[in-house]
Amino acid sequence: MTDVSRECQSELDCLRKGIDAIDQQIVELLSKRQQQVNQVVALKKAHNLQVYHPAREEDLISARRQQAREAGLCPDFIEELYRIIIHRSRVVQSGQMAVKGVKPGATVLIVGGTGEMGRYFVDWFQRAGYGVRSMGSRDWENISALCDGIDLAIISVTIDKTPEIIERIGPYLPPDAVLADVTSIKKKPLAAMLAAHSGPVIGLHPLFGPTTSTLDKQIVVATPGRDDAACRWVTDQFATWGSIIVTATAEEHDQIMEFVQALRHFATFSFGQFLAAKNVPLARTLEFSSPIYRLELGMVGRLFAQDAGLYAEIIFATPERRALLKEYIASLARNLDMLETGDRSVFEAEFKKIAAWFGPFGEQAIRESSFLIDKLIERF
Amino acid sequence: MTDVSRECQSELDCLRKGIDAIDQQIVELLSKRQQQVNQVVALKKAHNLQVYHPAREEDLISARRQQAREAGLCPDFIEELYRIIIHRSRVVQSGQMAVKGVKPGATVLIVGGTGEMGRYFVDWFQRAGYGVRSMGSRDWENISALCDGIDLAIISVTIDKTPEIIERIGPYLPPDAVLADVTSIKKKPLAAMLAAHSGPVIGLHPLFGPTTSTLDKQIVVATPGRDDAACRWVTDQFATWGSIIVTATAEEHDQIMEFVQALRHFATFSFGQFLAAKNVPLARTLEFSSPIYRLELGMVGRLFAQDAGLYAEIIFATPERRALLKEYIASLARNLDMLETGDRSVFEAEFKKIAAWFGPFGEQAIRESSFLIDKLIERF
Repeated sequence: MTDVSRECQSELDCLRKGIDAIDQQIVELLSKRQQQVNQVVALKKAHNLQVYHPAREEDLISARRQQAREAGLCPDFIEELYRIIIHRSRVVQSGQMAVKGVKPGATVLIVGGTGEMGRYFVDWFQRAGYGVRSMGSRDWENISALCDGIDLAIISVTIDKTPEIIERIGPYLPPDAVLADVTSIKKKPLAAMLAAHSGPVIGLHPLFGPTTSTLDKQIVVATPGRDDAACRWVTDQFATWGSIIVTATAEEHDQIMEFVQALRHFATFSFGQFLAAKNVPLARTLEFSSPIYRLELGMVGRLFAQDAGLYAEIIFATPERRALLKEYIASLARNLDMLETGDRSVFEAEFKKIAAWFGPFGEQAIRESSFLIDKLIERF
Repeated sequence: MTDVSRECQSELDCLRKGIDAIDQQIVELLSKRQQQVNQVVALKKAHNLQVYHPAREEDLISARRQQAREAGLCPDFIEELYRIIIHRSRVVQSGQMAVKGVKPGATVLIVGGTGEMGRYFVDWFQRAGYGVRSMGSRDWENISALCDGIDLAIISVTIDKTPEIIERIGPYLPPDAVLADVTSIKKKPLAAMLAAHSGPVIGLHPLFGPTTSTLDKQIVVATPGRDDAACRWVTDQFATWGSIIVTATAEEHDQIMEFVQALRHFATFSFGQFLAAKNVPLARTLEFSSPIYRLELGMVGRLFAQDAGLYAEIIFATPERRALLKEYIASLARNLDMLETGDRSVFEAEFKKIAAWFGPFGEQAIRESSFLIDKLIERF
């Protein structure tokens, strides 16, 4: 070894020792952090608070991104690290919260328990240690026995049958049992439940299907009906499974869902419909496709791999929804002129107006979808 | 607020402040770490040493896993973090070391090098060690000097200007220089290049934008024009950056792109347009949103965070495209009847027909998107 390289080697060793010392401090701090998080969990548990706070997590990420920027570090790199740290601390937290049902010994009746969604809930409640009874359309002769002593009845049948089933089961429910439904509209079912039952009532809309393997961060919209306090254990149970409970009036829920479900699914349906009508060479377009196109086409393909009846139900649920979809078609047709004349300036002006309306969400969407594209590339 | 909850809240705030302070220290240490790594790189560069030391990295991971175990942290969690930290520091290191191009010593002229996409290519070719000249609209007086001795000219200007610029620059090109364009249509530019230049010609369509941080697995469609062998190094260069080269005729390319780009972007545009027109409470819908909705809305938001002109260019590129979009609008309007009458059976029949057309792609899409949804849940 020459003197120069020996000198270089010792310098390198010295720098590496410095890096090792830094790494040791980082892991020490992560350990301290975990202890603090454990204290937060204990506190939340003692006061019956929700584990997951999306806003708090986003604030934390933003603060660290800002610090990274100021320190000349790549903010995306720091965000990636903190997403893992936060995810980890959430896993630890949920592990420490009770896995047992929040109301031990309670009995749950799933009406429509033989359907796909019904079976899904039967499974979840059973695994949480509840007494679970499942009721199908042939079990009406045993209705008294099935309802006897239950603490919760969940109506999990198709939208069109929901009001009728609620009316029919109402008289058999114990007066203090919670009556809940899980359909994707809330105004009508909630009204039907309040009319049929004098005890606690709550409308639920789980925003996930029976193929979802974890309830972690899955959303359940809760529309309170009567006696919130008595219904509390039901939403707590979903929160314990990791779900996020969003509370809304039935009116607000139905209005928002017109967009979140009906419009979105109809738009996707129409897009797939046109691709099929034009007999687009799907496989070849995928060869020509950026990951983002693959992702977008996947969203379309995904819809058509699911149940036609389910989507019919969502799209045709109410006359208001159908009116909205007709408005959507009319809105598209207003672009015909621009396409006819080929006037880009009209398009660009409209585009900028919409971009302003979307505001900062656009940037955030770029960040999120870029992350997913990377994952897609990594994996496929 | 009761006293109990107030007390709990202040305790919670205090713990959170503690966590924030720890996080700040962690990021500070990561910044210090980066500085040390930079010194290592400088030293290695000066002494011509290899950047990547697998053994050193594994030692480092082992030491941190050991420390984690002793501190009661999950070793896998710490390893996951350190893989990212190490990966990042390798990215920074290789960025600082030179990455040679496939044709060392070659000179590249980026026409439109002051535009966003142009600057992007200037950057990539420069980092690969090429001599890079950038030409904007004010540089026509120096055109002879700019073209002198170049090996490749890449036309990166808007679609409408492309044929004119090609025609104008043709006479100045060395006869054996490769002439390429990167616009998103290929028939017209390719014809213009073949007419303007007698040497090697190739049309390129990179299916990514200037915000893409890696070319890994990104697709570049190549439409051969003249003298494939002489053009080869250009596609090889993209392949070296990790891009996938898909070869097609200009005709096929343009036809496929009508669907992959024009139709898709127009559908997304129209969807966002309607959300804005209805002034949908975006933030509130996100609270009500399943991860898949977040993903889909993200695709819409993403579009509007990008350049209006770029999308105008894609959508209005050719009269054929505009005709296709008008067909699409007409196709949607044919669903009006079904919405008017509320006839689900029509919808379900149509749905099943389309599902059959999609075939196995639907199942595959479910698999891929479920994977992404898991990633999305983990991360956001």
